[in-house]
Amino acid sequence: MVIGGDAAGMSAASQARRLKGSDELEIVAFERGHFTSYSACGIPYWVGGDVGERDELIARTPEEHRARDIDLRMRTEVTEIDVAGGRVRARDIDSGAESWTSYDKLVIATGARPIRPDLPGADAPGVHGVQTLDDGQALIDSLTRTRGRRAVVVGAGYIGVEMAEALINRGYEVTVVNRGSEPMSTLDPDMGRLVHEAMEGMGITMVDNAQVTKVHTGEDGRVRAVATEDAEYPADVVVLGIGVRPETALAKAAGLPLGAHGGLLTDLSMRVRGHENIWAGGDCVEVLDLVSGQERHFALGTHANKHGQVIGSNVGGGYATFPGVVGTAVSKVCDLEIARTGLREKDARRVGLQYETVTIESTSRAGYYPKASLMTVKMLAERRTGRLLGVQIVGREGAAKRVDIAAVALTARMTVEQMTALDLGYAPPFSPVWDPVLVAARKAARAVVQGF
Amino acid sequence: MVIGGDAAGMSAASQARRLKGSDELEIVAFERGHFTSYSACGIPYWVGGDVGERDELIARTPEEHRARDIDLRMRTEVTEIDVAGGRVRARDIDSGAESWTSYDKLVIATGARPIRPDLPGADAPGVHGVQTLDDGQALIDSLTRTRGRRAVVVGAGYIGVEMAEALINRGYEVTVVNRGSEPMSTLDPDMGRLVHEAMEGMGITMVDNAQVTKVHTGEDGRVRAVATEDAEYPADVVVLGIGVRPETALAKAAGLPLGAHGGLLTDLSMRVRGHENIWAGGDCVEVLDLVSGQERHFALGTHANKHGQVIGSNVGGGYATFPGVVGTAVSKVCDLEIARTGLREKDARRVGLQYETVTIESTSRAGYYPKASLMTVKMLAERRTGRLLGVQIVGREGAAKRVDIAAVALTARMTVEQMTALDLGYAPPFSPVWDPVLVAARKAARAVVQGF
Repeated sequence: MVIGGDAAGMSAASQARRLKGSDELEIVAFERGHFTSYSACGIPYWVGGDVGERDELIARTPEEHRARDIDLRMRTEVTEIDVAGGRVRARDIDSGAESWTSYDKLVIATGARPIRPDLPGADAPGVHGVQTLDDGQALIDSLTRTRGRRAVVVGAGYIGVEMAEALINRGYEVTVVNRGSEPMSTLDPDMGRLVHEAMEGMGITMVDNAQVTKVHTGEDGRVRAVATEDAEYPADVVVLGIGVRPETALAKAAGLPLGAHGGLLTDLSMRVRGHENIWAGGDCVEVLDLVSGQERHFALGTHANKHGQVIGSNVGGGYATFPGVVGTAVSKVCDLEIARTGLREKDARRVGLQYETVTIESTSRAGYYPKASLMTVKMLAERRTGRLLGVQIVGREGAAKRVDIAAVALTARMTVEQMTALDLGYAPPFSPVWDPVLVAARKAARAVVQGF
Repeated sequence: MVIGGDAAGMSAASQARRLKGSDELEIVAFERGHFTSYSACGIPYWVGGDVGERDELIARTPEEHRARDIDLRMRTEVTEIDVAGGRVRARDIDSGAESWTSYDKLVIATGARPIRPDLPGADAPGVHGVQTLDDGQALIDSLTRTRGRRAVVVGAGYIGVEMAEALINRGYEVTVVNRGSEPMSTLDPDMGRLVHEAMEGMGITMVDNAQVTKVHTGEDGRVRAVATEDAEYPADVVVLGIGVRPETALAKAAGLPLGAHGGLLTDLSMRVRGHENIWAGGDCVEVLDLVSGQERHFALGTHANKHGQVIGSNVGGGYATFPGVVGTAVSKVCDLEIARTGLREKDARRVGLQYETVTIESTSRAGYYPKASLMTVKMLAERRTGRLLGVQIVGREGAAKRVDIAAVALTARMTVEQMTALDLGYAPPFSPVWDPVLVAARKAARAVVQGF
């Protein structure tokens, strides 16, 4: 039995079905929404016009799942998990009818919910989240109906900056209001500053250190402006992109173990700790950060798919584990690419790691090759041991996916000195003779090691 | 004392100088050509017009090296190494004057020489190599002078396919004549086939399984056609791109140890084996292939730079090692990207490794995102252990540098199952939710492991 019909839940169902046919394994899945297996990460590109149709974001429809003998119950919300009894109570949202269903093995994939600020006016027409396909459709409809061209984005994390791009692409004047000292708080502030400057350069008004206090509405009840303690920003449309929290109300009520970030705690096979027959994956769980050694919460489709795969293997009688993450994320705002993996300075300090940092500038291609673009790479290495702790990259074309080099190196617990010898692909159209990541590693090795 | 003023030699000199000032270390360097520290890998792009000026390919001029207190003797060829006496004999090429100079520490960085086929007519005007800047200039002059628009490229390795692109860009009708069964023999033939097809699609005539027997010249003595056993290909210009061999005649005459591929053998500090005071690096050495455990010869600027860095650290009183390579290389022909790392099937067989192979197709970005391009990824994993052995990628934009993920994984001796959990950067503009390398790893893991 699967609760939640998106990436983690349906990947688990599909993989279990791959390993065991319908004669061996019955699969029931509950989804409270209208859609299954869709790419929430694609919503900004749909809103911005890069993706034409909502349905392009749907990887697999309910019908496709049912064709593989998965008993998928749409618009059905699970309202209670009875762990001792091995059953869940579910409610048909349209009819209101409730019933109990028993399970032998349960997969919890309830995802995350967006943080909605407790603000006066936050529910006014014209104020939108972008968590679900329905949210995306509502925003697109709102943008189509509204004549005004002023948009305010609240929050400057991944969703915030991607929505800023989407709104720029639709011809809006965009203001991004952000509580932090710089946008992209998943970067160190010095790297976030580069994002701030680049976004200003795109004509986006960046307001940092600003707490939104109120959403003002007009006489028609529709949003009119966003107020902070210091100022007021006129807005014909407002997008909230403040982040998400694990959706674990059900799990909490059932007495399942939650971590410090509110996510379910699992073991390496993605089984809920202390529960033989319950698995959990996706945005509702905490994952082990392999660099810091502590659990963290990362809401990312790519993790959810992997969790589902692992759960499906184990539930289906195979064997797989999810060892953890290193905290990789990439994003872009128009032609600006942003990437990070591993620990920021404050993460390293928080877990007691001492470190050196270096920052270098290099190019995406050989300097003499056309369209070589500048990128800035910041690298953290542990003091004395030289172990790689984190990398952040801000640049243009070719910047973001270079972080994968560091992601693999972090997984392998390499030192920055070891990284200087990495045999990376080199040809003038693809890299300088020293890849930017190697330039950073070399400088970091010199910061840690004498005589290197 | 440094023999050879290109990447390895001058990187060694520069790094040694960085660690030790002129009061502590005297540095003499001999270079027989006109240039120092230039990018031979950039020559195809200069010939093709992507790079405007020869001098853009020069990273550091003789004057710049001299400004750092390196006694650089240009147009001076070392003709003998007297290992027992700790001295070298050098000849001023212009005056013919010879003299002996003593060294305390010697760095051999004599590079590679192109393989020139022993063919009638191979020295005719209009037949060109592309190893040095002088070669490149001679080819450009030849192309400028010649009215005909038919070019034949002999060889379909990196240099061959890159020169095919350059000549296409200059408006030539290009025929590539290749001894092997497919172009790019650094790939397995099934992947080489994709390159063949793509190049044919660009209007390049691909002739495989063809041994050039003769270069025909016209009445003016200039090249007229290239003959194979079966056919004759009219040619107004011919480019030879057959590959290179280590330039180790000097070293051999001095009794220094050479390997099976004709390159110098060094230890991990890049010191010539059995010689306390002689180092060697760049295209004249063999390097340890970390995957096969055997020495191989890879002529690549990126290795040469790393060798130089390591040698310079050690000669300058610091400490560094070069652990080896995994055999990564990337290239492109127009918009086709080609990448490989690790072992091909025949390499694995040769060293006694049993393996599984999988091949997958995926996209560079989320399938619904604009400009998502197809790529084919082939992966080799060791039978039973599942250790990654090699990856080959052929595709369009975004294909080549993905091989870096595999390069780092090979260095860390990861299994394909471990790779399936790699925390790679995901966002729709940069990758599908499963990166193509992960899709391949997952399929490879299923080929090796039961119940995954």
